[in-house]
Amino acid sequence: MFSLKDIEIAQQAEMRNIKEVAEKVGLKPSDIEQYGDFKAKIKLPIKKSTKTKEKLILVTAINPTPAGEGKSTVTVGLGDAFSLLDKKVMIALREPSLGPVMGMKGGATGGGYSQVVPMEDINLHFTGDMHALTTANNTLAALIDNHIYQGNSLDIDQRRIIWKRVLDINDRALRHVVIGLGGISQGIPREDGFDITVASELMAVLCLAQNVADLKRRIGNIVIGYTTKRKPVTVDQLGVTGAIALLLKDAIKPNLVQTLAHTPAIIHGGPFANIAHGCNSVLATQTALKLADYTITEAGFGADLGAEKFLDIKTPVLGKSPDTIVIVATVRALKMHGGVKKEDLKQENVEALKNGYVNLSRHINNMKQYNVPVVVAINQFVSDTETELQCLQKLCADEGTKAIVANVWAKGGAGALELAKEVVNSCEQVSEFAPLYSAEDEIKVKVEKIVTKIYGGTKVEYGTKAKRQLKQFAELGWNHLPVCMAKTQYSLSDDAKKLGAPTDFTIHVREFVPKLGAQFIVALTGNVLTMPGLPKIPAANGMDLSDEGKISGLY
Amino acid sequence: MFSLKDIEIAQQAEMRNIKEVAEKVGLKPSDIEQYGDFKAKIKLPIKKSTKTKEKLILVTAINPTPAGEGKSTVTVGLGDAFSLLDKKVMIALREPSLGPVMGMKGGATGGGYSQVVPMEDINLHFTGDMHALTTANNTLAALIDNHIYQGNSLDIDQRRIIWKRVLDINDRALRHVVIGLGGISQGIPREDGFDITVASELMAVLCLAQNVADLKRRIGNIVIGYTTKRKPVTVDQLGVTGAIALLLKDAIKPNLVQTLAHTPAIIHGGPFANIAHGCNSVLATQTALKLADYTITEAGFGADLGAEKFLDIKTPVLGKSPDTIVIVATVRALKMHGGVKKEDLKQENVEALKNGYVNLSRHINNMKQYNVPVVVAINQFVSDTETELQCLQKLCADEGTKAIVANVWAKGGAGALELAKEVVNSCEQVSEFAPLYSAEDEIKVKVEKIVTKIYGGTKVEYGTKAKRQLKQFAELGWNHLPVCMAKTQYSLSDDAKKLGAPTDFTIHVREFVPKLGAQFIVALTGNVLTMPGLPKIPAANGMDLSDEGKISGLY
Repeated sequence: MFSLKDIEIAQQAEMRNIKEVAEKVGLKPSDIEQYGDFKAKIKLPIKKSTKTKEKLILVTAINPTPAGEGKSTVTVGLGDAFSLLDKKVMIALREPSLGPVMGMKGGATGGGYSQVVPMEDINLHFTGDMHALTTANNTLAALIDNHIYQGNSLDIDQRRIIWKRVLDINDRALRHVVIGLGGISQGIPREDGFDITVASELMAVLCLAQNVADLKRRIGNIVIGYTTKRKPVTVDQLGVTGAIALLLKDAIKPNLVQTLAHTPAIIHGGPFANIAHGCNSVLATQTALKLADYTITEAGFGADLGAEKFLDIKTPVLGKSPDTIVIVATVRALKMHGGVKKEDLKQENVEALKNGYVNLSRHINNMKQYNVPVVVAINQFVSDTETELQCLQKLCADEGTKAIVANVWAKGGAGALELAKEVVNSCEQVSEFAPLYSAEDEIKVKVEKIVTKIYGGTKVEYGTKAKRQLKQFAELGWNHLPVCMAKTQYSLSDDAKKLGAPTDFTIHVREFVPKLGAQFIVALTGNVLTMPGLPKIPAANGMDLSDEGKISGLY
Repeated sequence: MFSLKDIEIAQQAEMRNIKEVAEKVGLKPSDIEQYGDFKAKIKLPIKKSTKTKEKLILVTAINPTPAGEGKSTVTVGLGDAFSLLDKKVMIALREPSLGPVMGMKGGATGGGYSQVVPMEDINLHFTGDMHALTTANNTLAALIDNHIYQGNSLDIDQRRIIWKRVLDINDRALRHVVIGLGGISQGIPREDGFDITVASELMAVLCLAQNVADLKRRIGNIVIGYTTKRKPVTVDQLGVTGAIALLLKDAIKPNLVQTLAHTPAIIHGGPFANIAHGCNSVLATQTALKLADYTITEAGFGADLGAEKFLDIKTPVLGKSPDTIVIVATVRALKMHGGVKKEDLKQENVEALKNGYVNLSRHINNMKQYNVPVVVAINQFVSDTETELQCLQKLCADEGTKAIVANVWAKGGAGALELAKEVVNSCEQVSEFAPLYSAEDEIKVKVEKIVTKIYGGTKVEYGTKAKRQLKQFAELGWNHLPVCMAKTQYSLSDDAKKLGAPTDFTIHVREFVPKLGAQFIVALTGNVLTMPGLPKIPAANGMDLSDEGKISGLY
């Protein structure tokens, strides 16, 4: 059953022309721009389709472990199950970054018989959105350095530029660099650094923009640094808002693809959830909401990161909160949270499962704080025993939460029918969304609410720079902005090694990064990095392209 | 007549669906992959179409001046004239770089009524080839630094890495950088630098590869640097040839678009001609040769750069030399070569024209050395007087060359009918191609032949590093490779200020860069830079995107 690799299943898929897929949700050929036969961009603005409901389902997960959780796989399988139940459904996922594709194995297109296709294209250049963002980001960087070189009429302090360059690559050597070397005609030497594209403010701007006008407004408001008198300098002041927007004119349009079972899927925007806000684009979700009765979307990593940001950053912009939150957990991963090593995961271990359940329990209770109905999806692996599965279901039931076993890797949508029915019912519950904090809360209060109510920590420590920034941002009138926490995904704390549900811990905020275009303040905690590195043996080393153009070694 | 801007003419164009354009040269819908309605990639391998001839026309020019020459405009207009004459014709151009688009005004899609469309897409992200190259280049760079960081089993000397990072942006601040700063976990500090993508070896590799197998072979052979024992290190040794090739799997396929008059045009590969080899891809030219009776292609900047490289680097790989070379000149530009300032160009000045003619004359005689028939195209501007035009024609005739006036900016193909007829006749001449040098010549001999026979210089001076490299490359067995000169485009010499036809000058080679994948040796002359800078007021500052998604300010 598990003999085929994901890429082989994807390569054998019989895809339908994207026009047919579009038609399922009422999009005519003139409403889309094809990129080959199996990818398309949806033209803006989107018109509303004939539909009876507007239900939003958010898929999130426990804290990830090396055992694998399969959030995207469950999202895709759940979407296909909705299709099997004859529901008008759309999936909305994030775009993969080439960093992890070339680094640790892993694109973001699901797995087994729950995949979005064409898997290879989506994991490589797709429709070029990531490259457009990289180009726009670095064009702006070049324009900033050129402004200084050409006379610096805005009086930008080259030591206070906060606009970094980016690449969609894991490249630790570019984290800290000195640029502008080589003498008088080569620029002005200064410290700089590269982030990965998915951590960039432009990615967040693209993901939070409601339309082209909003995209331009947000770009214009981006603060790229400060003058020697410590006044913020914006892109509008540089006079290049139009040029940067123009480079994103196609990237802002949502991308349409299909699952292996031809369920329409939008894949658009891909900020990481540990170092960015972790949600696909507002336009993608809005498009799905307009076209389908059920929109199934996901947010990155565990519910402490992606889901918190979905609910506190994306929901206010989207103007709609989820009707149900699905938390994905696996027996294997919970056993790891309960202390089992990866090599011992195949052995039944109910005790470890019970110990590790605290991680899932924390996330369930966290999500319930927002007053949104929660369903747990147990993503089944072949090594799970019946005893373990029943034990996990009972643990959830004892706390009043339904947990449904789904077998989507092997069976696709057919493996998630029971889960889908439960989610359909859950979406009919009436509940009033309860945000974690209000805009009026000070930045410090927002951080403390996230840390105590979501992470389960006791206090927050601010580094010298962060303390100074809290004061500065209050003076600049930026207190009303939400906070985007940058934190390790592996633990509820800022220490990757603390699995399970740690208590009595402190979160260390070393620095804030203001993102006035995205309209949030990033808080860098622990030693989280905004540019990943490659592992000892990168996935790239196992890839190949045959003389006939066939790809292998992509995961 | 000149009231509409190029972008307005392009935006008003009634384009045909690219399927119809493809059909003109026998390509079925299944032979192409559409990128929207008006762009497509041609699937490989290309099958030969029914056709009677295989004529190749190379369009080149005098040394460029700020007056403008219009090589792409003439290429497009000439193609449309062939269409009007009912010839089966294809145009093959290079892809524009975003560097100049955002910097000094100027994409590369022609002008007036001789343009390729969709102009905006072609000048911005097009089908993503440039971004794929940037990504592949920088992925390789990250893999190199990661190899060293993870133990450096290949013993790469970090002071001898010659693989630079690239961006498709004019960014002088990145010419010389120090990377790997920040301490132990951030990499290993070393000097590095960024080139513009169009100067990268991967661009040359893409443009010279005959097929996917050849692409992989060339990538594998790339030398990225040397060991501490000064042995070359290749991409094959790093074990990542497959990953880099895979990132170029779509970029290697030629792109199909159309002119305003619906003549099929391939736009593929875009190396600059001053700092790279300046020709579109071998696959593009081969595709056009297989599908059409007449293939009209161009090479960048003046004939001393693009055409020399076409004839000495591309032709041996292509296996076919041009049947006619068209040299584009304008009265305005020749007057500048004759000493007139830009602001005085509108005044008739036959004397200056005669003085400046020496530049054209040098290029004509240079091209004739290759034993290929030459036709001069005088690209007419409104300010040209009848006396000037006749004078220029007579100057050419006196040296035995036909010069035809073409008015393609204002009239499109109809303005180049006489030129087209002359080219058709010229292509029927039988002549044996005479290469400038043979593979057996030493690198030094090749450089000297280019300098004396093409540039008109008297000698070559080598810097200390270049001298050492000549010795080293001979030992490494690289003597058989052709030379790709990197030189200012503005002068036949390596001093941009020497216009006209300078004599008695020395070319200064400061350094060589071996490109074992591209299979040539770059010679850096004068103070030529492989990463341009932005001007005082970049074109970016005049660009905008309306709320409805309409672009303005693009040239």
